Amino acid sequence: MRYNNRGKDQIRPVKFTVGWGEYPAGSVLIETGKTRVLCSATVEERVPPHLVGSPEGWVTAEYAMLPAATQTRGRRDIANLKLAPRSAEIQRLIGRSLRSVTDLRLLCGMTVTVDCDVLQADGGTRTASITGGWLALWLACEKLKKQGVCPANPVREEIAAVSAGIVGGEVLLDLDYSEDSRADADFNMVMTAAGRVIELQGTGEARPFSRDELNELLDLGTKGIAELCAARRRACGGLK
Amino acid sequence: MRYNNRGKDQIRPVKFTVGWGEYPAGSVLIETGKTRVLCSATVEERVPPHLVGSPEGWVTAEYAMLPAATQTRGRRDIANLKLAPRSAEIQRLIGRSLRSVTDLRLLCGMTVTVDCDVLQADGGTRTASITGGWLALWLACEKLKKQGVCPANPVREEIAAVSAGIVGGEVLLDLDYSEDSRADADFNMVMTAAGRVIELQGTGEARPFSRDELNELLDLGTKGIAELCAARRRACGGLK
Amino acid sequence: MRYNNRGKDQIRPVKFTVGWGEYPAGSVLIETGKTRVLCSATVEERVPPHLVGSPEGWVTAEYAMLPAATQTRGRRDIANLKLAPRSAEIQRLIGRSLRSVTDLRLLCGMTVTVDCDVLQADGGTRTASITGGWLALWLACEKLKKQGVCPANPVREEIAAVSAGIVGGEVLLDLDYSEDSRADADFNMVMTAAGRVIELQGTGEARPFSRDELNELLDLGTKGIAELCAARRRACGGLK
Amino acid sequence: MRYNNRGKDQIRPVKFTVGWGEYPAGSVLIETGKTRVLCSATVEERVPPHLVGSPEGWVTAEYAMLPAATQTRGRRDIANLKLAPRSAEIQRLIGRSLRSVTDLRLLCGMTVTVDCDVLQADGGTRTASITGGWLALWLACEKLKKQGVCPANPVREEIAAVSAGIVGGEVLLDLDYSEDSRADADFNMVMTAAGRVIELQGTGEARPFSRDELNELLDLGTKGIAELCAARRRACGGLK
Amino acid sequence: MRYNNRGKDQIRPVKFTVGWGEYPAGSVLIETGKTRVLCSATVEERVPPHLVGSPEGWVTAEYAMLPAATQTRGRRDIANLKLAPRSAEIQRLIGRSLRSVTDLRLLCGMTVTVDCDVLQADGGTRTASITGGWLALWLACEKLKKQGVCPANPVREEIAAVSAGIVGGEVLLDLDYSEDSRADADFNMVMTAAGRVIELQGTGEARPFSRDELNELLDLGTKGIAELCAARRRACGGLK
Amino acid sequence: MRYNNRGKDQIRPVKFTVGWGEYPAGSVLIETGKTRVLCSATVEERVPPHLVGSPEGWVTAEYAMLPAATQTRGRRDIANLKLAPRSAEIQRLIGRSLRSVTDLRLLCGMTVTVDCDVLQADGGTRTASITGGWLALWLACEKLKKQGVCPANPVREEIAAVSAGIVGGEVLLDLDYSEDSRADADFNMVMTAAGRVIELQGTGEARPFSRDELNELLDLGTKGIAELCAARRRACGGLK
Repeated sequence: MRYNNRGKDQIRPVKFTVGWGEYPAGSVLIETGKTRVLCSATVEERVPPHLVGSPEGWVTAEYAMLPAATQTRGRRDIANLKLAPRSAEIQRLIGRSLRSVTDLRLLCGMTVTVDCDVLQADGGTRTASITGGWLALWLACEKLKKQGVCPANPVREEIAAVSAGIVGGEVLLDLDYSEDSRADADFNMVMTAAGRVIELQGTGEARPFSRDELNELLDLGTKGIAELCAARRRACGGLK
Repeated sequence: MRYNNRGKDQIRPVKFTVGWGEYPAGSVLIETGKTRVLCSATVEERVPPHLVGSPEGWVTAEYAMLPAATQTRGRRDIANLKLAPRSAEIQRLIGRSLRSVTDLRLLCGMTVTVDCDVLQADGGTRTASITGGWLALWLACEKLKKQGVCPANPVREEIAAVSAGIVGGEVLLDLDYSEDSRADADFNMVMTAAGRVIELQGTGEARPFSRDELNELLDLGTKGIAELCAARRRACGGLK
Repeated sequence: MRYNNRGKDQIRPVKFTVGWGEYPAGSVLIETGKTRVLCSATVEERVPPHLVGSPEGWVTAEYAMLPAATQTRGRRDIANLKLAPRSAEIQRLIGRSLRSVTDLRLLCGMTVTVDCDVLQADGGTRTASITGGWLALWLACEKLKKQGVCPANPVREEIAAVSAGIVGGEVLLDLDYSEDSRADADFNMVMTAAGRVIELQGTGEARPFSRDELNELLDLGTKGIAELCAARRRACGGLK
Repeated sequence: MRYNNRGKDQIRPVKFTVGWGEYPAGSVLIETGKTRVLCSATVEERVPPHLVGSPEGWVTAEYAMLPAATQTRGRRDIANLKLAPRSAEIQRLIGRSLRSVTDLRLLCGMTVTVDCDVLQADGGTRTASITGGWLALWLACEKLKKQGVCPANPVREEIAAVSAGIVGGEVLLDLDYSEDSRADADFNMVMTAAGRVIELQGTGEARPFSRDELNELLDLGTKGIAELCAARRRACGGLK
Repeated sequence: MRYNNRGKDQIRPVKFTVGWGEYPAGSVLIETGKTRVLCSATVEERVPPHLVGSPEGWVTAEYAMLPAATQTRGRRDIANLKLAPRSAEIQRLIGRSLRSVTDLRLLCGMTVTVDCDVLQADGGTRTASITGGWLALWLACEKLKKQGVCPANPVREEIAAVSAGIVGGEVLLDLDYSEDSRADADFNMVMTAAGRVIELQGTGEARPFSRDELNELLDLGTKGIAELCAARRRACGGLK
Repeated sequence: MRYNNRGKDQIRPVKFTVGWGEYPAGSVLIETGKTRVLCSATVEERVPPHLVGSPEGWVTAEYAMLPAATQTRGRRDIANLKLAPRSAEIQRLIGRSLRSVTDLRLLCGMTVTVDCDVLQADGGTRTASITGGWLALWLACEKLKKQGVCPANPVREEIAAVSAGIVGGEVLLDLDYSEDSRADADFNMVMTAAGRVIELQGTGEARPFSRDELNELLDLGTKGIAELCAARRRACGGLK
């Protein structure tokens, strides 16, 4: 039995607080179950060195977790003098996903940084960061459009992310931490609202899995992502 | 005129959300005006090297600001490979203040870490961290008492902190960011509810100030700290 | 047309030099096309902190590239004072894949480190590291078995890795660097010789891709991995 | 009884060796009791990033202690890969204090760095650094004036610093290390020769202290600072 | 008896593989006995800060050892967050030696970096790096000459390096690791083919040594360096 | 003409202040010409990891330069987050030289750290560090002998160090900075008082040099070292 009698193919309750922070161009607090991620999109007039002089701007992400966000307190990166490799990997995933649906030429000369700070972690923080971060990015770009800086919103397509996994022989959607830590296989999916694939990252941590299982996981993910996109659209009163 | 018609000797509206986070032993979200600091007290069964074998435990603090907490996005410490000196200084102040009212022998073998993470910054983040962090510490210690780990709550006395400053020739209580950035002199005070001094840090950034001005600043601080202590007691239904 | 008239579903010529280095317990130089990775497995009598006192040993990997391995010289990690995030991500993938087919209890008290040093890079260095690193690990474990340290070889199953991608509308197996840099989508697969999935990492860098395309990519990968496993078995005179 | 029969309101013997080093624009070895700090002011034609293009120059300080300066050898910062937080805090204090009496517009385009290197430490190193560093700065600026680079000496006012504390119930001026380590409360004061306040940093480490005690501490500090300014003026043959 | 019946004044078998790597402008794999160093010379159009605007270019070297190159696995520099001091010292020696025979004005605006990566280490890695690195540099410069970038090859003179030492009372040429670790004295020599001295680094690790012993060591080194230069010239078909 | 009419084979005036610092077991301020190095030997009851459980103790050195010690201010190591490679190389030389004449078994369980802090630099700082550091080490060991910790002084032999070089075609002893920066060749020698060799480090920075020139440099060094040893013995009232 899942927590709160959740069905196998059901996502956790999700809530988007738009404008949680006052200063960033786009600010969204996303809560899925007990997981809470503050997503903040900031626009700066600079581009990274490899784009100086190029007609394209940039979208990047940073991901971090407060030390007290987890059941056992974690150490801050600065205390270890290095970014946690897990965080580095996640923020590369977030940035890559968001860039894949952004027309970077419309951001020429600018960088949008999407900070995803996990305030409380109960599994699924990377997928929540993408789902919430997309909205923060969209809001920041909408502001650029309204200010006349961009002729159109550079974000071309809706994407969201969710996990699915095999736990105790069952294929489940949107794992929480207690499920994730017992999973035989774990799959993170980033897709468009229509179910086309942006990123897949799956791992058979405890045992290899079959093509049939893979297809079940993908079906569940497609369903969850469509639901997250719909909830997000409701939360911000429609995207347009 | 101050923002929202605030009087010269008036603190900003203050709100304490007790139990904001689910995992830390003590969790408090303090909001004073637009400043929001998440204070989380975690208990670990270890002591720092200099206390191994000693009859005393330890209380320490960590202070950090989310990059998007301020009007202009800041860089993360890890990107600079060093803790911001300002943060280092502030967390030393918070830790010293909290230790000064804690009976460390009652925490023998344990360390309580009070994480003060600034989610939004509009001036007064270090004083809010002390005021909120004290409550997080007290709650964590109360839990230790209830679990029978400590015979009594090791926190012996209520303290809080506030700033005051000289802005445009006027002595003002509890500066927000726009006031602080124009201040001739700036004073941070940590005191007991009864007005005895724990820490004073004052600086005449733009000009030296006189003993008379110093006394005015101290009077205002004493008043503000008493009010903060009262609000905090109300917020958590009394301290006992 | 692919380099050297390679077919769409053909892997590059692959060569394994077993025992290239004299000191590591397992040493393999893998060459696939122009890509060359030196894989060295070393056994140490220690376990990482989280396994002290546990009945399990550990398998870990480190991945790095010589500065002159690529067409444009790269900077060494130490010059940047941080491990390249890309390398961190890759070595986590290699370690996770190798551990998934290792019986860690047979390595109790020991750590096997598989160093994957890229001497020349022409695409596919992470998959070559897994394919070559698996053999280095197997050889080191075989030595432990012969020395009577392990009752059986702890490596339970053969795995290998390969990439596939969509380039100019075509689905291609085992991308070299010039193909990879033009790919619309890029997929790295780690599977057993029998085609069961260990890890999938796919990204639609330039555009989302469909479930049908995904299936084509997986079919190609399954074929390539079977061929790599067969070539590897021949190279070391059979795995027994 | 204090060391060498010093009175409660007496500063330690102080000695200034002007021109101890040959290369810096201003070089002063200050000795107060056994504490010895080498203060070196160097002028460079550059400003920190936040002042590029501004009409103001900059004054900054660096503070460090030789490993063998204390009774127990300390580790060098570089061995810890971070500046000791205590040093960071102190050098911010020194820099802020010196800037508060400098007309930065007269230093346009230039940075004066005041290095305060503690060669031997017996308490009061931060206050000695300010008292000695002020003279090094003044000397460097005097040289700029003589070279015609500055129309007037940018240092507008004399400042010095001293500590006072409550030790065993007694209020004492200018604590040495053995007193400081037993102090209930410890106060560092930076003032003008006329007793106006630049910086106050006080901490009731062992117990809160009262407004009356605070006033006693301030009175002692005012007296000590006036004496240090007078001694310093004698040492360099008058400031003009 | 030395390994493989080598005579006291005999160097180890040496082999140069020219063009081992495909991308660097000059690439040489040098093997002396079991020691293998991959030397790669890369040309970049930039100069270090101290040469911006100068008529001279730069030659620099980087030296590193793969973790599995030695009998006991070493840690990577990045894991220690610092370049091994021994490596730093060696790469300074290589760079200094190569620069001493290069006409830097012919490299105006360019930097040649010679990467010396030790793939297997059995003593003499620093001297092999210089002997192999010189050829990589010469090849890269020859390419610049052929491209018309340099009017002549900026490398003016042939140099090579070898060690000699006192082991068990005997003076031996070209120590391998087992000899080096038992040596009373150890001498590294960098000379021109004609025996003129570029660098000498000798240390009486176990006991001081006499002027007579020093002369014997220098005679052996002169002989070895002449032989290495001859072998190198044969390996690349003459230096023209 | 050399500064102050010094002869070609003459060392600079040298002065040893024994006991300059109050806390270290051995403290020596050495001044040779304008070069000033504070040498402090501290004894700690610990050994480095590789000697835990061994019958031998350890002698190590740390070398650093104050930022204002040179004509142009240098940056502190901590600002660069790495020990200057030059300093790393020098402190390895100092440590190796001092260990070569110390009976480490008499120091069992202890480490003597010799800090060499350059307060003013006018060439020859590494050789002054060895010459002064030897005395600091000897004094610290003498104290151990007097305390009965060591049955005899573990320092078995007197050593000192000096430089010589070829400047404008002339062979000169003990180069100051202005000579060193124009030298064609530069030689640092560490020898016993009787002229036996501990360390030689010579470099033909501008041109290779001959065996005859090498012999002249060694003769000068032998003379200088004998004079430094004699001066040092006089300064501390004889070594016994």
